[in-house]
Amino acid sequence: MNLILLAPEEIASGRCTLTDVRANHLRTVLHAEPGDRFQAGVTDGPIGTLTVVGVGEDGVTVDFSPEGEAQPPWYDLVLALTRPRQLRRILFQSATLGVRDLFLVGAAKVEKSYFNMHLLREEEYRPVLLEGLMQGKTTAVPRVRLFPKLRDLWDALPTAGSRLIANPAPEGAPAPALDRAAPPIIAIGPDGGWSEAENADFATHGFVPISLGPRPLRTDTAAVALPAVIADRLRRA
Amino acid sequence: MNLILLAPEEIASGRCTLTDVRANHLRTVLHAEPGDRFQAGVTDGPIGTLTVVGVGEDGVTVDFSPEGEAQPPWYDLVLALTRPRQLRRILFQSATLGVRDLFLVGAAKVEKSYFNMHLLREEEYRPVLLEGLMQGKTTAVPRVRLFPKLRDLWDALPTAGSRLIANPAPEGAPAPALDRAAPPIIAIGPDGGWSEAENADFATHGFVPISLGPRPLRTDTAAVALPAVIADRLRRA
Repeated sequence: MNLILLAPEEIASGRCTLTDVRANHLRTVLHAEPGDRFQAGVTDGPIGTLTVVGVGEDGVTVDFSPEGEAQPPWYDLVLALTRPRQLRRILFQSATLGVRDLFLVGAAKVEKSYFNMHLLREEEYRPVLLEGLMQGKTTAVPRVRLFPKLRDLWDALPTAGSRLIANPAPEGAPAPALDRAAPPIIAIGPDGGWSEAENADFATHGFVPISLGPRPLRTDTAAVALPAVIADRLRRA
Repeated sequence: MNLILLAPEEIASGRCTLTDVRANHLRTVLHAEPGDRFQAGVTDGPIGTLTVVGVGEDGVTVDFSPEGEAQPPWYDLVLALTRPRQLRRILFQSATLGVRDLFLVGAAKVEKSYFNMHLLREEEYRPVLLEGLMQGKTTAVPRVRLFPKLRDLWDALPTAGSRLIANPAPEGAPAPALDRAAPPIIAIGPDGGWSEAENADFATHGFVPISLGPRPLRTDTAAVALPAVIADRLRRA
C-alpha cells in the first residue's frame, strides 16, 4: 500500500475509524502511532494526508486532510476475457497503470463460461481494483463492463481517442498517431489471438495495429506492455 | 505454445520422439496427424519446422528441419529477488520478452529466506523459462545467476551496454541515451524500493534512472513495462 484509500462514506468531519486490512496494515506493517502521517486518498476523490489519532484493539482512528487531485486515469482497455487468475492480475495491474474503463469482451477463442466467474461480481473485483489503485497512488476506480458478444461493444466505446489493437503491424509501418486530447482505447486479444472476422471488425471500427515486436506476448504480458509503451510515447511526444 | 522447443540431445538424424507435455499438446490441443507441420526450435539453436511422423500411445514422433536463426535475446535484467509466485511469472515473462542474463540479487527489502526457495533450483526454473521461450517463439535459454549480496554483483555484470534503473527520474530529465551496440542492463527493485545506500551503489556503477511515470509499479509490473518501453525506444530510435 503506497497510499491508503478511504471511502467517502467512511469519513465524517474528516475523521474515520478503520477496522479492516488497512487497520492491520497501519498497525503491523507501518507500526502506526498517534501523530504519524501517511499518504492517503479518497476513492474517486482527492489525495492527501492521513494522521493517526488513535490505535486501539477495535480499530485505527485517523484524520484525513485532502491536498490535491489524484493522477487521472488516462486509457481505456478492451480485453478479451481471460481465466480468473490472469484476470485478477490484469485488474490489479491495469488499476495501477491508470485504466479508466475496462471493457471485458467475448471472442471466438474466449471460453463462454468465463463470463460466469465469481471475479466478475463487483464485490469480488472491486477490492482487487482498490489494491491496484493503492499500489499506483491514485484514486479513480476503473469501471468494468461486460460484453459477452463483441458486436455489442462498438456502440459502447467512447467516440474520441485513438483506437489501437495489439497486433503485428506490417513491416515498416509508421507508428500510429496518438490523439493527445482523449484517452486512447487499447485492445488486447486472447492468447490464441482474435479471429480473422474479429480483426476485420476492429479494423472497421477504426482500430489500428500497434506492434510490440517480433515476440508474441501472452495476454497478461501485453496488458502491461502496451499501456506502458503508449504512456511512454505520449510522455515523450 | 507458439513454438515447440526440442532439446539438441533429443534429436538424432533430425528425428525425435516426444513423450511429455509437448506430446500431449500436439495430440490434444493441435490434434496432430502424420504430415502436419508446426513451428519449432532447438533450445539455444535454430528455429524451423517440425513435421509429425507418427502419433502413438507412447509418444509423438517428429522430424525437425532447421530454417533460420531465432530472435536473439537483447537485454539483461537485475532483479531484486521476489516471492516465488511473482518470480515464476517474471521468469516466464522475461523469457518471452527476450532476456539474456537474469541476475537475481538480495537487497535490504528482500527477505533473505527467498534465496532458499525451490524455484531457484535449475530443474525447477528451467521448465518455466522454456515455457516463456515457447510463448515468445524463441530459443535462447536465459541464464540465471544468484547474488544474495548485492556487492558481489558489480564484477559479474557485462562491461558493455546501457545501465538503467527503474526509479523516478528528476523532473524534466532527458531520457537516457541507449547504446545500441550491446544489450542494456535493466535493474528492477523490490516492492518497497532500493535503500538509499543501494541506490547510491547503482549510481556509482553507472546506472541511470529511467522513469515509468508518476505511478509506482509493483515489481512484476515494472519487470514487463520497462523492457517493453526500452524495446520500443530502441525500435523507434
